[in-house]
Amino acid sequence: MSLLFIGTVALDTLETPYGQAERIAGGSATYASLAASYFAKDINIVAVIGNDFPKADLKSFEEHQINLEGLQIKEDEKSFFWSGRYHADMNSRDTLITDLNVLENFDPVIPASYQNCTYLMLGNLTPGIQKKVIESMHTRPKLIVLDTMNFWMDIMLDDLIEVLSMIDVLTINDEEARQLSGEYSLVKAARKILAMGPKYLVIKKGEHGALLFSADNVFYAPALPLEDVFDPTGAGDTFAGGFIGYLAKSEDLSFDTFKKAIIHGSAMASFCVEKFGTDRLKHLSQQEITDRVARFVSLTTFAV
Amino acid sequence: MSLLFIGTVALDTLETPYGQAERIAGGSATYASLAASYFAKDINIVAVIGNDFPKADLKSFEEHQINLEGLQIKEDEKSFFWSGRYHADMNSRDTLITDLNVLENFDPVIPASYQNCTYLMLGNLTPGIQKKVIESMHTRPKLIVLDTMNFWMDIMLDDLIEVLSMIDVLTINDEEARQLSGEYSLVKAARKILAMGPKYLVIKKGEHGALLFSADNVFYAPALPLEDVFDPTGAGDTFAGGFIGYLAKSEDLSFDTFKKAIIHGSAMASFCVEKFGTDRLKHLSQQEITDRVARFVSLTTFAV
Repeated sequence: MSLLFIGTVALDTLETPYGQAERIAGGSATYASLAASYFAKDINIVAVIGNDFPKADLKSFEEHQINLEGLQIKEDEKSFFWSGRYHADMNSRDTLITDLNVLENFDPVIPASYQNCTYLMLGNLTPGIQKKVIESMHTRPKLIVLDTMNFWMDIMLDDLIEVLSMIDVLTINDEEARQLSGEYSLVKAARKILAMGPKYLVIKKGEHGALLFSADNVFYAPALPLEDVFDPTGAGDTFAGGFIGYLAKSEDLSFDTFKKAIIHGSAMASFCVEKFGTDRLKHLSQQEITDRVARFVSLTTFAV
Repeated sequence: MSLLFIGTVALDTLETPYGQAERIAGGSATYASLAASYFAKDINIVAVIGNDFPKADLKSFEEHQINLEGLQIKEDEKSFFWSGRYHADMNSRDTLITDLNVLENFDPVIPASYQNCTYLMLGNLTPGIQKKVIESMHTRPKLIVLDTMNFWMDIMLDDLIEVLSMIDVLTINDEEARQLSGEYSLVKAARKILAMGPKYLVIKKGEHGALLFSADNVFYAPALPLEDVFDPTGAGDTFAGGFIGYLAKSEDLSFDTFKKAIIHGSAMASFCVEKFGTDRLKHLSQQEITDRVARFVSLTTFAV
């Protein structure tokens, strides 16, 4: 049950109605690996940073027993940097700055010690890089989860469709599912997307929860209604990390286990948004997670 | 377990991407009472129509054992008429025509034979009329459910707030909950709205399901992901009718029963949108309803 995350380790400057945070650790691999670390052991990262990534945050990875052998450090360059401002409703945001920096020439190299990884999470990168990573694994992982976004559907659709034929689980949001399939009905969209290769489709709907589709089944997990959403950054990556982390821990790929994984991912995402950046994800107890999952049970359970 | 619906019985001309329907029976009391008729007996309507309402549709009410003694027929006037066109996504629509006609001077009169009604559903009418209906009941019903909309929040907020202090359950959508409370977080919005009087708040989120709040509890019911939404008209009223119908049948007002009522309302709404107008609601079997509710169980059930 070894896990490999390929994605970004970045610096973010954020502004929400609740305050501001400058150059804090972010990126898909950061959020996802931290979330997964509460479920699985033997977690490995492939990403790239520059000379400006805080040592304290590298230490955080280590405290969570996340292996950084595949983390490339470019001593003469800067880390991938994103700056954004959230609107009052927290559901929309303006991107102020995107500096690719080290990401521009990112060439993920899988260390020999990672080659046995059985669960692979491909964060939102160019479809070409995602494909290269899959091909560079000597043995195909037991489960490949891929995250992507509308940007790649706009400019690299053929590449994206190629890599979709190589994976097991696709995670996208509802608008992206509609764009990728050309269908407004999510049921029809799911059928078309599953025909492209993935055995499972996870449709992330933010405050409206998540839908899980397989060929024969569908499951709807709500998002937890929260008093305050402090900072939504990283919620989707945290969801994905909790999801694959739970699957890796369970060592079972039945639809029932996928449902539980969706709930655990949702629980982790509900923590993520309660503080800025990764603050809330760094110091969770197993009891807090158990209690949070219990709230999802209470939120959704009815007897007929 | 007698039920009273006050609302509209109307004629609608609809255009959706799937086709057109001209001057078909619609209105909140129509959809709600038909939905409730699958659960409860002794269902009564107070509404007003003109000389143009089809006899066949009046017969439909009778076939569903819906009592029309309180249905006023204005022989020299026309029925309330609404015409609308749905956009391709079915989530938004343009109103083309709204002819109030008989609704302009609607003065609901509660027949003596309705005075024993224990469950009262106040459809979306002016808050003043809703208040008058409550005051004209000799005995306060066991449960009063009220539906309203942003329009009354815009122009008659004081009247609306007054009637909210007299009811048990408010049903509105998420945008309306935010407008009424001034809070974006639905948790905070619910707290403020429950402080205005209702013991329960049902937030309808269309394709994203529904949230039920009480002072101490929250429940999230998904909407059933559907292959096609043929015509969304009346889905909210159908939901409300199935909801109060199930409560009336159960004769129990615990939170657990409310949860089941929300699921049964959602199931009825999922039928409603499968055909134009009330077509699907007219001829359902108990087995179809049982099977549909089972799909909600399968959609939401997980074991942790």
